[in-house]
Amino acid sequence: MMDEQTLFRAVVDLCLLIFLAELSSTVNARLKIPRIIGPMFTGILFGPHLIGGIVLGGRPIIEFNELVYTFSEIGAVMLLFSAGLHMRFSELISIGLASTSVALMGVAVPYFLGLGAAVILGYGWYAGMIIGGSMAATSIAISLKCMGELDKLETPEAKVILGAAVLDDVLALSLVSVILAVIVGGRAINTFEVLRLLGTTLIVWFLLTMASSRLLPRIMNWVTKFGEIRILEAVAILFCFGYASLSGRLGLSPLVGAFVAGMAIADSGCHERIVEFVETTEIFFVPLFFVVMGGSMNPRSLFTSDFALIFVLSLVAIGSKLIGCGLPAVLFLKDRNKALRVGFGMISRGEIGLVIASIGITYMIISNEVYTALILMIFVTSLLPPFLLRRSYLKEDQMARQTVSDEP
Amino acid sequence: MMDEQTLFRAVVDLCLLIFLAELSSTVNARLKIPRIIGPMFTGILFGPHLIGGIVLGGRPIIEFNELVYTFSEIGAVMLLFSAGLHMRFSELISIGLASTSVALMGVAVPYFLGLGAAVILGYGWYAGMIIGGSMAATSIAISLKCMGELDKLETPEAKVILGAAVLDDVLALSLVSVILAVIVGGRAINTFEVLRLLGTTLIVWFLLTMASSRLLPRIMNWVTKFGEIRILEAVAILFCFGYASLSGRLGLSPLVGAFVAGMAIADSGCHERIVEFVETTEIFFVPLFFVVMGGSMNPRSLFTSDFALIFVLSLVAIGSKLIGCGLPAVLFLKDRNKALRVGFGMISRGEIGLVIASIGITYMIISNEVYTALILMIFVTSLLPPFLLRRSYLKEDQMARQTVSDEP
Repeated sequence: MMDEQTLFRAVVDLCLLIFLAELSSTVNARLKIPRIIGPMFTGILFGPHLIGGIVLGGRPIIEFNELVYTFSEIGAVMLLFSAGLHMRFSELISIGLASTSVALMGVAVPYFLGLGAAVILGYGWYAGMIIGGSMAATSIAISLKCMGELDKLETPEAKVILGAAVLDDVLALSLVSVILAVIVGGRAINTFEVLRLLGTTLIVWFLLTMASSRLLPRIMNWVTKFGEIRILEAVAILFCFGYASLSGRLGLSPLVGAFVAGMAIADSGCHERIVEFVETTEIFFVPLFFVVMGGSMNPRSLFTSDFALIFVLSLVAIGSKLIGCGLPAVLFLKDRNKALRVGFGMISRGEIGLVIASIGITYMIISNEVYTALILMIFVTSLLPPFLLRRSYLKEDQMARQTVSDEP
Repeated sequence: MMDEQTLFRAVVDLCLLIFLAELSSTVNARLKIPRIIGPMFTGILFGPHLIGGIVLGGRPIIEFNELVYTFSEIGAVMLLFSAGLHMRFSELISIGLASTSVALMGVAVPYFLGLGAAVILGYGWYAGMIIGGSMAATSIAISLKCMGELDKLETPEAKVILGAAVLDDVLALSLVSVILAVIVGGRAINTFEVLRLLGTTLIVWFLLTMASSRLLPRIMNWVTKFGEIRILEAVAILFCFGYASLSGRLGLSPLVGAFVAGMAIADSGCHERIVEFVETTEIFFVPLFFVVMGGSMNPRSLFTSDFALIFVLSLVAIGSKLIGCGLPAVLFLKDRNKALRVGFGMISRGEIGLVIASIGITYMIISNEVYTALILMIFVTSLLPPFLLRRSYLKEDQMARQTVSDEP
């Protein structure tokens, strides 16, 4: 165990990062830049590669200590739990087909375009699988937070994005298994086996979601009868992290489990109280998730990298999600602007992309240069959606106001 | 760093303990037992010595992992911060003399009575210093939580207890230094040196309190102007843990620092918002403090211990605080019932007592038997105040109701 001095020094670092993240988020709001860029920028600036790396009096000025990483992982889970709270099971069913199409195409198009681009650039098939794979999975956190800021979480496009992003996670994790089996295990995997793997994972997820959506609201409603808000909150966080842990064990991502728990609780009578509770308590955890995300990026790697490669990979990554997610969305939402927003919201890549890129460099399938380019591609795609979404929504709101003032 | 599976399993243990603590607190409320006994009982029952120690599938059913201990220490700090939020600097000054007298007598009487009892029982002077020392410091957490439950934190006796408990902490920490110097350092310390040490610590504390009470409210009021509740909350927790860490460095307890920060913020305009924020977020941390406190007690040691010794030590510990704190309180509060409550509230002992007892056994000044008796004395004194305070307040409320209904 840490001694008291070390512990509280670590907690102070944690609070400093939370403060800086909230400060830059406030400043961004003034500058009319998406807020969520603030915490990520804080992470870059105060991260271990820049200011946080300066040693003063025997220790870094601000240390990304283990507590910071732990709290940031808890934050990621809370974020998806909170997203689940904004989506009922019945809503998921009603947008099920749309989300499934967006997710399937949104994984397939980037994967194959990435693979194709890599082969054309002369990197070979295995490297192509890594490059395509790291483009396949959307990371929903940023778009989610951004739509929350704009108060657009209840729009149909947000629901489609949410549903698709969760399915996308399920699909991408199966893809990781396939890539590991082919590249590391040296096994030739046929299409049938891939589909079986995907199918099993999807069925496990669907069964868990369905069972929970029936069971959890009843439990929550029963607990509500006690008339004690604290025990209700305690049960809610127990479900949130219990499901995260369980879905990790089932081979899904912990984030998917937290989403399932949140969605199930969304159907209970105490839903609003829990939303309020999560919104108040998340300040200890969620900002750190974005700070750590920013901190993982080394700005110095910019100076030694192949800009042409970064540009091409980012372009493929952005274009492929816009096409892969936007096209099916047009079909279902029957509105070009809303469909475009689905495309925007799905652009950002994250942890799963990093994991696949790491597999590539660990097994020496991609060079250091390609690895850096993939990291920067992930970073570029993370920064883009807040700007695109904000602009698209502001334009709509402006037009709505004009229509109102034009009325006689 | 922990891998994801281990991390979320640890978080689930943490949430389970929070849930069980809140559940037993709710059950206690129904049974008309003080709520705060619930989390402590949860700690004993599910602690490493009983159910938590049962290994199932290669790991304990519920593990008191490092995260649990970390969160519990954060909880202790939040509790004192929250206590500080209920006391303005001007209030501290107005009850300053009362609190100082209660604190001084409340440390001196138990110390000398404990020392005397030990010498009479034939344990010698050094062991007597340890036994008296471990009786000297009040641990305020339980009484605080209990008076919060009863909604009595704004009563004059609660203010006197708060002020006295903080000064008591300062005094007791100086006592630890003295005991260490005499017993470990083998130095003969004269009265003058003891007084100088006490004086320095008290002056450091007072200067810190005074400066903060002028500076922090201004900063908080300035931050309030941003109109952003999240940045306000971020600044508040930064002050809370920054002060905890700082006061640790100054040789005071981190808890004293958190109290100073809370008291300073109590004088700012945003005081109520911060109280609400702390009350909502503390559920992640504070219940675990009481759970860990319960878990540190090994019920099996009961079977092998010297009951006569436990009985005598507990009696001396309880009686000496009742006399040492109750008598000066009668003088200032001019109300026997209120003064008695000051005595009740100051009975509980905690960490500092444990530290002194540990010094004693580490340097082989007290036997294992005496050590166990001291631990159990600390435990008995922790359990008592909630019952005594609850009864005293209920009687008063009943009488107040009778008076009202007796009126024509």
